[in-house]
Amino acid sequence: MSADLAIIAGKGALPELLLDAAPGAVVVRLRGVPIGFTPEQVIDARFERLGALFDTMHQTGITHVCFAGGMHRPDLDRAAMDEATAGLMPRLTAAMAGGDDHLLREIIAVFEEQGFGVLGAHDIRPDLVAGPGLAIGDTDQALYNDEARGKAILDALGPLDVGQAVVVAGGHCLGVEALPGTDRLLEFVRDTRRGSGGVLIKRSKPGQDLRIDMPAIGPATIRLAAAAGLEGVAVEGGCVLLLDRDGIIAALDDTGLALWSSP
Amino acid sequence: MSADLAIIAGKGALPELLLDAAPGAVVVRLRGVPIGFTPEQVIDARFERLGALFDTMHQTGITHVCFAGGMHRPDLDRAAMDEATAGLMPRLTAAMAGGDDHLLREIIAVFEEQGFGVLGAHDIRPDLVAGPGLAIGDTDQALYNDEARGKAILDALGPLDVGQAVVVAGGHCLGVEALPGTDRLLEFVRDTRRGSGGVLIKRSKPGQDLRIDMPAIGPATIRLAAAAGLEGVAVEGGCVLLLDRDGIIAALDDTGLALWSSP
Repeated sequence: MSADLAIIAGKGALPELLLDAAPGAVVVRLRGVPIGFTPEQVIDARFERLGALFDTMHQTGITHVCFAGGMHRPDLDRAAMDEATAGLMPRLTAAMAGGDDHLLREIIAVFEEQGFGVLGAHDIRPDLVAGPGLAIGDTDQALYNDEARGKAILDALGPLDVGQAVVVAGGHCLGVEALPGTDRLLEFVRDTRRGSGGVLIKRSKPGQDLRIDMPAIGPATIRLAAAAGLEGVAVEGGCVLLLDRDGIIAALDDTGLALWSSP
Repeated sequence: MSADLAIIAGKGALPELLLDAAPGAVVVRLRGVPIGFTPEQVIDARFERLGALFDTMHQTGITHVCFAGGMHRPDLDRAAMDEATAGLMPRLTAAMAGGDDHLLREIIAVFEEQGFGVLGAHDIRPDLVAGPGLAIGDTDQALYNDEARGKAILDALGPLDVGQAVVVAGGHCLGVEALPGTDRLLEFVRDTRRGSGGVLIKRSKPGQDLRIDMPAIGPATIRLAAAAGLEGVAVEGGCVLLLDRDGIIAALDDTGLALWSSP
């Protein structure tokens, strides 16, 4: 086995989409994080044994890593930790208390200290990123007004590292994304709202390092937004991944929702 | 029928609690807003016929009104509107676009212009308000840290008129109250979270006029918070109503949750 790039695989479609563009890459499969495909080159690893992972990656010739896909915070087994992981725990625990962004920045720092360059998914697949001119379907001023209010809410929450998405309809905030993520937010709106209309606003957090946890939407996002009675999805141009663009367009066609980007 | 005070009844226990302290008051029962008790003096009214309501209140000798209990935004029947309501619609619609607080302030202004003084529930029942020294049950620094993070989130959202409550556990924001309210927030956390611990933080919005929609908790809030795995409820001293204090204490006893106030 030999590779320059290691794709550290989380959930969802992204790891395989990256592998399509970098077929020589090795996939790091972490215990407890199921992946839905069978890569040719695999390193099986555990959060508790980062020292072993670093060694294997160096021996394989890895120079760069890319974190791809969602990952829950694992329940770590302290008894199984190697020295490297145990040594990092105080740092990671401290970072965790500061919120997701702090933790992810610390993880990037750890890999960089080990000599690995950290790439974002957008570095490997720039074609997946929503461009600045994205505009599919019909919009109107009411939707833009809802988007503007959603942006203001996300801007206020950004420094607090709370969420990347919010639902606004007719000026009312129907839900704010928190730890459980965008799908749970949309299900909440679907189950609690009266009436219909409104927009899902999904953006990066101000100052977010897009190399980990870049916001992403897929066809399921569009269909859930439609099930929640929304009329549109507004993303930040250049900062949100469209996972399965064809599927997204088909979902927009089916549901009549609009999708657009703005700065 | 003759009275000084009209209690404009929304949902929940508050209207009856106010009537206990002001037994001579008349209760305004709005079509579409069910109340669970039978007052001696009632004015039946509709949102669409505010002119008729103002006339009846003046004839009854009403000098003050108190809005009590939650109220959904009604679906208004334009064909049924009297002149006064129709004349107010542009103002109320414009206020609505600015969020709940704007709308409620506008409603207060409308009643004041009609010559009615607007009282808060806390003016009639100061004994219902959580005092500055409230402290029931066991707390620790971790809970206070979660409370501090929740306060920071609510402070950031305050100017945007989004919500009065947030759930934080171990530094993570598990949910933010939006239009559907605190119960729906707690159910969301109950249904989506992993693990347990954490705090419901419930406070007034900065600059909120406490005469309408003062934050309130009751025994059901405590039990839902427990079902969501939380360990405590932190309220703002002087700004949150405790509806059924005995029931709240019994719920705290049953669940082991802590309840405290802070400035």
